[in-house]
Amino acid sequence: MMRGEMERVLLGHGSGGRLMHQLIRDHVAPLLGVSDLGDSATIDPGYDGRRLAFTTDCYVVSPLFFPGGNIGELSVYGTVNDLSVAGARPLFLSAGFIIEEGFPMETLQKVLVSMAEAAGRAGIRIVAGDTKVVEKGKGDGLFITTCGIGTVAEGVSLGPDRIEPGDKIIVSGPIGRHGVAVMAERNGLAFDPPVLSDTAPLNGLVELMIERPPEVKMMRDPTRGGVATTLKEIALESGRTLRIDEDALPVPGGVRGACELLGLDPLYVANEGILIAIVAADAAASLFSRMKDHALAKDAAIIGEVGAEDRKTRGMVLLRTGVGGTRIVDMLPGEQLPRIC
Amino acid sequence: MMRGEMERVLLGHGSGGRLMHQLIRDHVAPLLGVSDLGDSATIDPGYDGRRLAFTTDCYVVSPLFFPGGNIGELSVYGTVNDLSVAGARPLFLSAGFIIEEGFPMETLQKVLVSMAEAAGRAGIRIVAGDTKVVEKGKGDGLFITTCGIGTVAEGVSLGPDRIEPGDKIIVSGPIGRHGVAVMAERNGLAFDPPVLSDTAPLNGLVELMIERPPEVKMMRDPTRGGVATTLKEIALESGRTLRIDEDALPVPGGVRGACELLGLDPLYVANEGILIAIVAADAAASLFSRMKDHALAKDAAIIGEVGAEDRKTRGMVLLRTGVGGTRIVDMLPGEQLPRIC
Repeated sequence: MMRGEMERVLLGHGSGGRLMHQLIRDHVAPLLGVSDLGDSATIDPGYDGRRLAFTTDCYVVSPLFFPGGNIGELSVYGTVNDLSVAGARPLFLSAGFIIEEGFPMETLQKVLVSMAEAAGRAGIRIVAGDTKVVEKGKGDGLFITTCGIGTVAEGVSLGPDRIEPGDKIIVSGPIGRHGVAVMAERNGLAFDPPVLSDTAPLNGLVELMIERPPEVKMMRDPTRGGVATTLKEIALESGRTLRIDEDALPVPGGVRGACELLGLDPLYVANEGILIAIVAADAAASLFSRMKDHALAKDAAIIGEVGAEDRKTRGMVLLRTGVGGTRIVDMLPGEQLPRIC
Repeated sequence: MMRGEMERVLLGHGSGGRLMHQLIRDHVAPLLGVSDLGDSATIDPGYDGRRLAFTTDCYVVSPLFFPGGNIGELSVYGTVNDLSVAGARPLFLSAGFIIEEGFPMETLQKVLVSMAEAAGRAGIRIVAGDTKVVEKGKGDGLFITTCGIGTVAEGVSLGPDRIEPGDKIIVSGPIGRHGVAVMAERNGLAFDPPVLSDTAPLNGLVELMIERPPEVKMMRDPTRGGVATTLKEIALESGRTLRIDEDALPVPGGVRGACELLGLDPLYVANEGILIAIVAADAAASLFSRMKDHALAKDAAIIGEVGAEDRKTRGMVLLRTGVGGTRIVDMLPGEQLPRIC
C-alpha cells in the first residue's frame, strides 16, 4: 500500500476487509504492543489455569433499525457470537452507549428493551455500563460498544494450527442476509418476501457442536467482509488452501436477487447469525447431521474442504465456479458496505 | 422531572451528574433488566467462588489532546481506576475505536502509542479490540471504549453498607485538575503555570491501601461530576450523612484561579487520577500516613467524616464553609462540563 493512501482513515478501514486488516496489522496491533488483536482473546486470570474468553465490538450500524433486527440485539448477539466461535460459554456483558444530543428517548428505550430481550434469549447477563452524550452533529444517533466474558471449558482447543488437509468446511446457514437487509433499508428498497437480517445468538448451536471437542478444529462468524473475508483469514492463519464449491453455497433466492440489484457479491456480504466451522473429515458427516437438528442450522451446508499441501496455493481460497472454472477469493478490498454492523 | 424534559437525550445526560443518574436509574438500568449499572461489576465466573471485577467506559473527551494527557492514556487509566477502586487488580483491557472518516493516521498512531505506554505503566495487558469507521460528519475524530477485567483478592470487601458514623473521608490528591485542563484547552486559555490533567493509574496506590482490607470501607474515583457528585452518590448508597470541611479540600491555586475565571466550582470539576476513600476511624491516621508515601497521594487530605445517625440528614452531604456556615452539596445538576472524559 502506498504511503499517501494511509495518511487518513478511510471508510474502507472499517469495512472488515483488506484495508482494515492492514490498519490493524500495521498500526493498531504493533503500536498497542500486542501481537494480534483478534475478535476474542483467551485470558488466564490466574485461577488454577482456568481460561476465560474476552471480546469487544463497536456497533455503528446505520440505520439503527433494519428488517429483522436493530442495533440493540445486534450488539448483544454479535458479542455473544464472538465468544461462542472462540469455544467459550458467554456469561457476562458490558454495554457502553455514545448518544448524540437530541436522540429520542423513546428510540433509546426500544433499543434497551431489545438488548434486554436478546440477553435473556442468549442467557448472558448485562452487568456493567457507561453512557456518554456528544453534541448534535458530533455523532450519529447511537453507537453501542459491548464487551463479553465467557468461560472456556477444559478440553476445548480451537485454532488455525489444528487445521489439516481433508478437513471439511461447514457454513451453518444461508449467507448474505444481514448485509442485504441493512442495504435494502438504507436504499429504501423493499423485497417481497423481505430479506431479514439473520442476527441470532450462536451459543446454543456451538454448545451442541463442541460436545465432542476434537471434531471441530476452528470456528469463526463471517460478519463484516462476509464469508469470503473470513475464509481468507482462516487460510492465511492456518497456511492452508481452502477449496470451496460455488454450487454448495447456501445463497437464498432473495439475497441473490437483491445482490444483483445492488451490485453486491453474496460472498462479501455481512452475516450476523451464522458460523463457519472447519471440521475433521471423519467426523464431518455425523456433526453435520447433529447440526441440522438445531433451528439455526437447518440450512447448514458443507461448502468445501481443506486442500492438499501445496506451496503454490498456501493461504489461498479457491472457488470452483458453477461452470467448472476456478477463481481466487480474496478479502473484501475496500469500502463495499460501510457501517453494516 | 417533567416528562417533556425526558423526551430527548440532552448533553447533560452525559455529564455524570443528576440528569445522568436519572437516565440510568429510570431508563437504562430497568430496561436492561439490571438492578444497578455501576462503574464496575463483581462477577463470579464459576471458578470456585473466585471473583472478577468487570467494567467499561466510553471516552469522548474533546479535544483529544489536552494539557497533561490525551484520550489514549485516559481510556486506559480511567478503566484501570474503575477496577482499582472496586478493590480489584487490573489485568486485561479491550479497546474499541470508532473513528471518523478522514481522521489523520498520524494522530491515531500517537493515541495508540500513548495507550500502549499507559498500559505498560499500569501493568495491564491490552488483549482484544475492534475498529469501526463512520462517515465524515457522523462522529468527532475518535471515540474509544475500553473494558477492563481484574481479579478481586480474597478478604477484600468494599461497599457502602460497611460505612459507619465516625469513618473518615480521605481524598488522595488535589482536586479539579483534569476538568480545568480540558476546559482551558477547549477555550484557548493558557495558565502560568499550566494546570495539567491528573490522569494517572491508581492501582499502585490502591494496592498499598488495601493491604489491610478492613481499614478501607469503600473507594470511588471522582471523575465526571467531580468530588461533590461522588460524595453524594456515597451518601445516597450508604444512607449516611457525609460531613466535609471546605478548608480541608486540596484545591490547587491554579485550579482555584481557573475556576473563578471559567465560572466553575472545583467540587464539580472532573478528576482522573484521584480517589475518595471512606476509612475506619481508628485506622485513618496510619493509613493516611502510609498513603502520603505514594507519589500520587503526597497531597492527600482528610476532608471530613461520616456524621452521626440522623434521620433528617440521611443521604446528605454537608459542607462546613470557610466562614463557619453549612451548605448542602448536591450532584452536578446538568450540563456543566460536557465531554470531559
